[in-house]
Amino acid sequence: MTGKISDSRKNMMLFSGRAHPELGEAVAKELGTDLVPTTARDFANGEIFIRFEESVRGADCFVLQSHTQPLNKWLMEQLIMIDALKRGSAKRITAILPFYPYARQDKKHLGREPISARLVADLLATAGADRIVSVDLHTDQIQGFFDGPVDHMHAMPILTEYIQSKYSIDNIVVVSPDAGRVKVAEKWAHELGDAPLAFVHKSRSNTEANKTVSNRVVGDIEGKDCILLDDMIDTGGTIAGAVRVLREAGARSVVIACTHGVFSDPARERLSECGAEEVITTDTLPQSTEGWDNLTVLSIAPLLARTIHEIFENGSVTTLFESA
Amino acid sequence: MTGKISDSRKNMMLFSGRAHPELGEAVAKELGTDLVPTTARDFANGEIFIRFEESVRGADCFVLQSHTQPLNKWLMEQLIMIDALKRGSAKRITAILPFYPYARQDKKHLGREPISARLVADLLATAGADRIVSVDLHTDQIQGFFDGPVDHMHAMPILTEYIQSKYSIDNIVVVSPDAGRVKVAEKWAHELGDAPLAFVHKSRSNTEANKTVSNRVVGDIEGKDCILLDDMIDTGGTIAGAVRVLREAGARSVVIACTHGVFSDPARERLSECGAEEVITTDTLPQSTEGWDNLTVLSIAPLLARTIHEIFENGSVTTLFESA
Amino acid sequence: MTGKISDSRKNMMLFSGRAHPELGEAVAKELGTDLVPTTARDFANGEIFIRFEESVRGADCFVLQSHTQPLNKWLMEQLIMIDALKRGSAKRITAILPFYPYARQDKKHLGREPISARLVADLLATAGADRIVSVDLHTDQIQGFFDGPVDHMHAMPILTEYIQSKYSIDNIVVVSPDAGRVKVAEKWAHELGDAPLAFVHKSRSNTEANKTVSNRVVGDIEGKDCILLDDMIDTGGTIAGAVRVLREAGARSVVIACTHGVFSDPARERLSECGAEEVITTDTLPQSTEGWDNLTVLSIAPLLARTIHEIFENGSVTTLFESA
Amino acid sequence: MTGKISDSRKNMMLFSGRAHPELGEAVAKELGTDLVPTTARDFANGEIFIRFEESVRGADCFVLQSHTQPLNKWLMEQLIMIDALKRGSAKRITAILPFYPYARQDKKHLGREPISARLVADLLATAGADRIVSVDLHTDQIQGFFDGPVDHMHAMPILTEYIQSKYSIDNIVVVSPDAGRVKVAEKWAHELGDAPLAFVHKSRSNTEANKTVSNRVVGDIEGKDCILLDDMIDTGGTIAGAVRVLREAGARSVVIACTHGVFSDPARERLSECGAEEVITTDTLPQSTEGWDNLTVLSIAPLLARTIHEIFENGSVTTLFESA
Amino acid sequence: MTGKISDSRKNMMLFSGRAHPELGEAVAKELGTDLVPTTARDFANGEIFIRFEESVRGADCFVLQSHTQPLNKWLMEQLIMIDALKRGSAKRITAILPFYPYARQDKKHLGREPISARLVADLLATAGADRIVSVDLHTDQIQGFFDGPVDHMHAMPILTEYIQSKYSIDNIVVVSPDAGRVKVAEKWAHELGDAPLAFVHKSRSNTEANKTVSNRVVGDIEGKDCILLDDMIDTGGTIAGAVRVLREAGARSVVIACTHGVFSDPARERLSECGAEEVITTDTLPQSTEGWDNLTVLSIAPLLARTIHEIFENGSVTTLFESA
Amino acid sequence: MTGKISDSRKNMMLFSGRAHPELGEAVAKELGTDLVPTTARDFANGEIFIRFEESVRGADCFVLQSHTQPLNKWLMEQLIMIDALKRGSAKRITAILPFYPYARQDKKHLGREPISARLVADLLATAGADRIVSVDLHTDQIQGFFDGPVDHMHAMPILTEYIQSKYSIDNIVVVSPDAGRVKVAEKWAHELGDAPLAFVHKSRSNTEANKTVSNRVVGDIEGKDCILLDDMIDTGGTIAGAVRVLREAGARSVVIACTHGVFSDPARERLSECGAEEVITTDTLPQSTEGWDNLTVLSIAPLLARTIHEIFENGSVTTLFESA
Repeated sequence: MTGKISDSRKNMMLFSGRAHPELGEAVAKELGTDLVPTTARDFANGEIFIRFEESVRGADCFVLQSHTQPLNKWLMEQLIMIDALKRGSAKRITAILPFYPYARQDKKHLGREPISARLVADLLATAGADRIVSVDLHTDQIQGFFDGPVDHMHAMPILTEYIQSKYSIDNIVVVSPDAGRVKVAEKWAHELGDAPLAFVHKSRSNTEANKTVSNRVVGDIEGKDCILLDDMIDTGGTIAGAVRVLREAGARSVVIACTHGVFSDPARERLSECGAEEVITTDTLPQSTEGWDNLTVLSIAPLLARTIHEIFENGSVTTLFESA
Repeated sequence: MTGKISDSRKNMMLFSGRAHPELGEAVAKELGTDLVPTTARDFANGEIFIRFEESVRGADCFVLQSHTQPLNKWLMEQLIMIDALKRGSAKRITAILPFYPYARQDKKHLGREPISARLVADLLATAGADRIVSVDLHTDQIQGFFDGPVDHMHAMPILTEYIQSKYSIDNIVVVSPDAGRVKVAEKWAHELGDAPLAFVHKSRSNTEANKTVSNRVVGDIEGKDCILLDDMIDTGGTIAGAVRVLREAGARSVVIACTHGVFSDPARERLSECGAEEVITTDTLPQSTEGWDNLTVLSIAPLLARTIHEIFENGSVTTLFESA
Repeated sequence: MTGKISDSRKNMMLFSGRAHPELGEAVAKELGTDLVPTTARDFANGEIFIRFEESVRGADCFVLQSHTQPLNKWLMEQLIMIDALKRGSAKRITAILPFYPYARQDKKHLGREPISARLVADLLATAGADRIVSVDLHTDQIQGFFDGPVDHMHAMPILTEYIQSKYSIDNIVVVSPDAGRVKVAEKWAHELGDAPLAFVHKSRSNTEANKTVSNRVVGDIEGKDCILLDDMIDTGGTIAGAVRVLREAGARSVVIACTHGVFSDPARERLSECGAEEVITTDTLPQSTEGWDNLTVLSIAPLLARTIHEIFENGSVTTLFESA
Repeated sequence: MTGKISDSRKNMMLFSGRAHPELGEAVAKELGTDLVPTTARDFANGEIFIRFEESVRGADCFVLQSHTQPLNKWLMEQLIMIDALKRGSAKRITAILPFYPYARQDKKHLGREPISARLVADLLATAGADRIVSVDLHTDQIQGFFDGPVDHMHAMPILTEYIQSKYSIDNIVVVSPDAGRVKVAEKWAHELGDAPLAFVHKSRSNTEANKTVSNRVVGDIEGKDCILLDDMIDTGGTIAGAVRVLREAGARSVVIACTHGVFSDPARERLSECGAEEVITTDTLPQSTEGWDNLTVLSIAPLLARTIHEIFENGSVTTLFESA
Repeated sequence: MTGKISDSRKNMMLFSGRAHPELGEAVAKELGTDLVPTTARDFANGEIFIRFEESVRGADCFVLQSHTQPLNKWLMEQLIMIDALKRGSAKRITAILPFYPYARQDKKHLGREPISARLVADLLATAGADRIVSVDLHTDQIQGFFDGPVDHMHAMPILTEYIQSKYSIDNIVVVSPDAGRVKVAEKWAHELGDAPLAFVHKSRSNTEANKTVSNRVVGDIEGKDCILLDDMIDTGGTIAGAVRVLREAGARSVVIACTHGVFSDPARERLSECGAEEVITTDTLPQSTEGWDNLTVLSIAPLLARTIHEIFENGSVTTLFESA
Repeated sequence: MTGKISDSRKNMMLFSGRAHPELGEAVAKELGTDLVPTTARDFANGEIFIRFEESVRGADCFVLQSHTQPLNKWLMEQLIMIDALKRGSAKRITAILPFYPYARQDKKHLGREPISARLVADLLATAGADRIVSVDLHTDQIQGFFDGPVDHMHAMPILTEYIQSKYSIDNIVVVSPDAGRVKVAEKWAHELGDAPLAFVHKSRSNTEANKTVSNRVVGDIEGKDCILLDDMIDTGGTIAGAVRVLREAGARSVVIACTHGVFSDPARERLSECGAEEVITTDTLPQSTEGWDNLTVLSIAPLLARTIHEIFENGSVTTLFESA
């Protein structure tokens, strides 16, 4: 046959945006490699400039960004990085979004609203992403917003393992802070020795003045140690309120666990003072325990590194979550 | 300016697949028009043939299909109808799927599964649908599977109005048959005078043999009249089981309500005999009350007709669900 | 260069839908491998569920389905399998449709009809198929309905080799059952020693009542052994009628050959009794010779296996049909 | 409602490429309008420049080009005109290709060939065409190469009406010049009073040296007046050969009819001298009867004008071909 | 014909992002309408929420956003607004970006860079924009980054008219601050009475230490009144440097004119003190003259309003720039 | 794991269109391979036919075409070649266009014009090109017209190296023939020892009759040796005029350099006689020095070969232009 023949090798390269460089470095370290040297800076008017310092031609590229504040900037940076990789002849581009931005806007609550979580998936595809990796999506259905492989990681094993190592689970009840999270709470309950379930039911009375909202606990939590969980905690209002309701209803103790600790103001204050024994989260977003004694941060980096490894080596990501 | 100028008028045409012609006719009647005459037949090997008997050029076309058994056939028929409209120069094509097929496969539960609900949206778009109308999607996020307008109708007002007209709501509790529907139950509870909530928690014991499943009611239902609801009831196993659990837990009575009465075998038997006072559903799928005394079927046709009218006249579909 | 380097290997995996498992197993055996274990079942309402039991990440996947009755179901199953592979990170997906469904609707015969054969190609592409393999498409142009590689296999060598091994070809004439297949008949005639050609001309008289149809044989078949061929035989009406016309016109014998034996009712009856010596077909669709003495089924599996092998190994599929 | 409301009118504009301006003007005249003034010229290196002299914003634009020699240039000109309309905010763009270029390459005859007819459809769509109008496509399946409405016009009524007005059809037989056109000949035969059919069978002997080709007439034409038809005649070799074979086989006379008279050298010579009584064609391509006595050119302009009118006014194009 | 017929009217609606509400209101006022009431707010973690307070079904929607700091946020807001309009059934969506963001990254300067200006066009299209309106793109080629109509407005007439009304143009020379803008300067020179041209040539000496950059004026400016122009001024370094070089080279006076006054720090300081008589700009971005005496801001609102009017009414935008 | 595993190798194949076979062969020779044998011919009516004589399955294919006259034909040939490769299962297709056609139409100069350079990029993508290689695009922004990797080669090093080897650069000035090329001239000036710059300013007087055009040199060229450069020279009118103006303004000598010597009539005449010492170009287009003494043609083949090599081996193309 006319032409030239050559061996085919594959090459994995890891890139990190500027939002949370510590996470990128931790993942690189777990993988036994380095982040690809990248020039990233802002022009005076806020436009982002990107250049990679090494050829990316033919490489299997993983682009990690953490969507913390200013979230829209970091999303745009990730899109620009992907565009540069596409134009630089990367072979395959995997966007890693440990915290998927705009996940809460995953449907139209009322008319004439966007579905921004779908828009984010479309923007990533348009820029050139072939695949997405994310952790604990606000709803599982967001997987279906992307027309390609989505590797959906779960932080639950990391969190429940920690809880089991620290607390006795004999007297616990798993509590969802609202009606929408009961299904997730059920999975946790199963994981934590088939524990009982409860949730906080928020109701607005029709008969009284419309500002009146009452929260009732549905399920039996009296004298129990509550594990109150959520996928993300933003300002902490709902969660802190739930802690209060649980305690009023006779809970013996409350531990809070969430994958994504957004902790926008005044979350730190609210959660420090709400009466919870401990707040457990991960570093999908940058975290600081400074001045917040009962905050515990578990690292997501080993999970991301194993996922990247399996994707690169065509192993199975599913097995990462199968019981031994 | 060179050329010819003419007035622009718009023309609405309504088409129905063969799955549920009564619904198509009921909608046409509400709209004060007729279904467009259509030749639809099966070739001997099962291939479907479609031809419209009138020109559809420039028309605003609405294609109604009901996804009952054999479901894949009716889906394919709808796709073929849409293709014929596209190639016949329809101006705009709206696919109406009162019951959205494959809605339960809206995410990967485990690895290497499809997301068939997204696939259905993509198939509709590929065939040529510009817009989708559906009723009570299994999850709201399915709206985001389609890259265009999705008008998402709700049967809840039809169902709750009927319940309020027939039953006293003073002693009721709204019950979700599993952990995943508690959020929807919460909306019903609010609509039904801020009623209390409960759900059935299904747990598999880890310590005992793994076939052991126990269902516990979470929430207080003793002596209560339960409204047990779901978006769809297929074989009725979960719902009938929930009725039993509720009665064992002391419920005074149970009424079942669902939008989509799929009622695959042996649902009729199970639901007739499970001890529920009444089963209420709509005609998004073909229904027969013959030999099933406590089944009540409410018509979705007026809602679909109003929706089509608003879409055609560029009115607001949102206002159909706003309180007066 | 920063990153990790690894050898690149490729992996072929073969999947079969549930329509015709024997064909899938026969192909796998020819290839010296097994079908990938797959969970496939129907929900009570007819929705199909698929899960692959092994990781497909990075694999070169071949998805075989036979489009027999219920045809729309099996098409949908194939689309869902492809979607699951796409989302499971398959590297490349080849859809194998030995019998291409809806091939007869490859154009608009009149206004406001679909072009369902194009629609099928678009649905496959939308689900995620990168490439199509099919056998004896109803018209060659269907290749152009897919925007990618279509490997178009021909069963003619299998059929003509059998005919030549069993019958003397000295006295034969190749007959097309209608005007549209004469071109194909010409290829057969060339293959069978440059045999003469004939076809049956179906005409509807304008002057008489419009039901009157007369069939005339165009070409000389008196005293000849006719090879009557078609790409597919559905209910067998046209073919059985052609046998009758040929015999009335003095044919000595008639042998029927077709690639796709659809044989919808009452084909078995018609063809058994029409006076043909033998009916020869392949197993692109499931076949049974039980109670049909003069039916001969040749296997397409070796051809499909060789095709898959060449595709996987980047060989030439074209050479499979080149004369030695 | 906030905003401004205005009446909606629609505006039809007709554009012609430079390949065959007489046809464009004839169509405009039939429509009672003028061609939109257009600057079109070649740069010195052959690049084409286009500018429309009037605003096309919001107009329903029809772009007529005739694909005569140099065919690739005129195709490119049409693509550029469509691009300019798209960027100039045309509302809808209909590409009119009376003779569809590359129609003969509508499949892969052997491996590693293009399907150029599909490519042409894709190029038109990419440039911005929403719809295609063509006349007598080489194969009907080409309709399916375009993902949108294709209005497929037929010149047969124009040609057969002329033949019936000039010749007695009592003694005629309709002849296809090769095996691939028999189906079309069958339609003509039906239109011409259910006339008999024949075709020329070209065979290459396997046993003798491979250049030997023999043409036999299949069907009875002795003493008959033959209507020899084709969709297009290029160099006229096949057709002139067919005339010869027909005369040798005893035909009383031969009239040639084709929609697309490409007439590349040496067609004029061949067809003038082949012994046919008359050659009938249309002006889908520029024609000249100068020095060619037995050539008759019928105008396609009225048909195109009626088609454009129906498309613009949302009438039915199908009815143009329905019997009275 | 079956169906319902209704008159077709069209409806224009104007929306403004939060970046520069004064411009939106000024445009609305020029058009004689109001901005559509819109709920727009930030969640605590920076995610943007949008809801339109009126139905947008069937409307011709114009979405104005000014891309000032924080630029990535305002771009994302515009994308989300467009997504909401698309899903809310807007008929047509025009994105108005008076200052096109990332216009400077319109090519790869070196390898492995993005082309962010193309990315922005793709993001707009993905969100659902059918058309773009912008003013004085950094390079004209950016029009070609969008696959649809781009209406490219020019502020030059506004700026030169002001200059001509205030200054004598007898002694002027038009100066480009660098080699890349000379073409634009040529257009200005023509507009300003065929004035002479000059530009500043920035060179890095090869022989000396590589930090040494010398700016030379190419062209004759001694004793002249210089009009120094640019499409945008960001930090003002280049422009202020050019003023200095011009003055050193003997210029009598310098007036600075630009369409887009980005004026990032320390532009105000630099430009106030650089010795220019006046700095003239427009309000494509929010401007304040407070504390900056020699800044003049001309309004772009009338130009945008006329453009929207022409687009809505299918007039000609081109004529807005044709000389009387 | 079920399936078959095999080593993965990669295979590079080089194809050349018929426009400039010498260039294709020169590139193949540099690469140490041959052009893939290809059947390419014209049908009588100008339609192009292509077939590759070897299997291209799985190959990394490079398709070289030179866009000389008849340019539209050669562009179409390249598109058809790409289509044939796509349908023949090529793994990756790189279109090489040393001279990018329609590059001058890279924007709308006035309303209702096409952007043909974008159209060309879209046509290539539609046909199946994954990547583009070109040399000295008319504007760098054309890179952004293609949604994928564009490797943009520069002939400047080849041209300036030649100039430096032949001429003393002590007394030179780099001259742009118009205002639009000054930026490129600046790069040359830097490369040529930081030489001074000038350009020719073409102005149409407003006050006098509108035909009056005067060309003035901006910059100091008296007594200098001018290097007059352009990316392409078509008919040579502008360049020959510039030579005249430079000489009138006192230039000591003028050498002309351009990457793309289109040299449409009467360029040979004009440039031979305009008074330039030498005209230097490359063979991106076919060139002949016969009868044109002062024309020098440098070969682009080594640069293209190195580029192909780097692309195939996943090396860095960027480094080809980095200074040692």
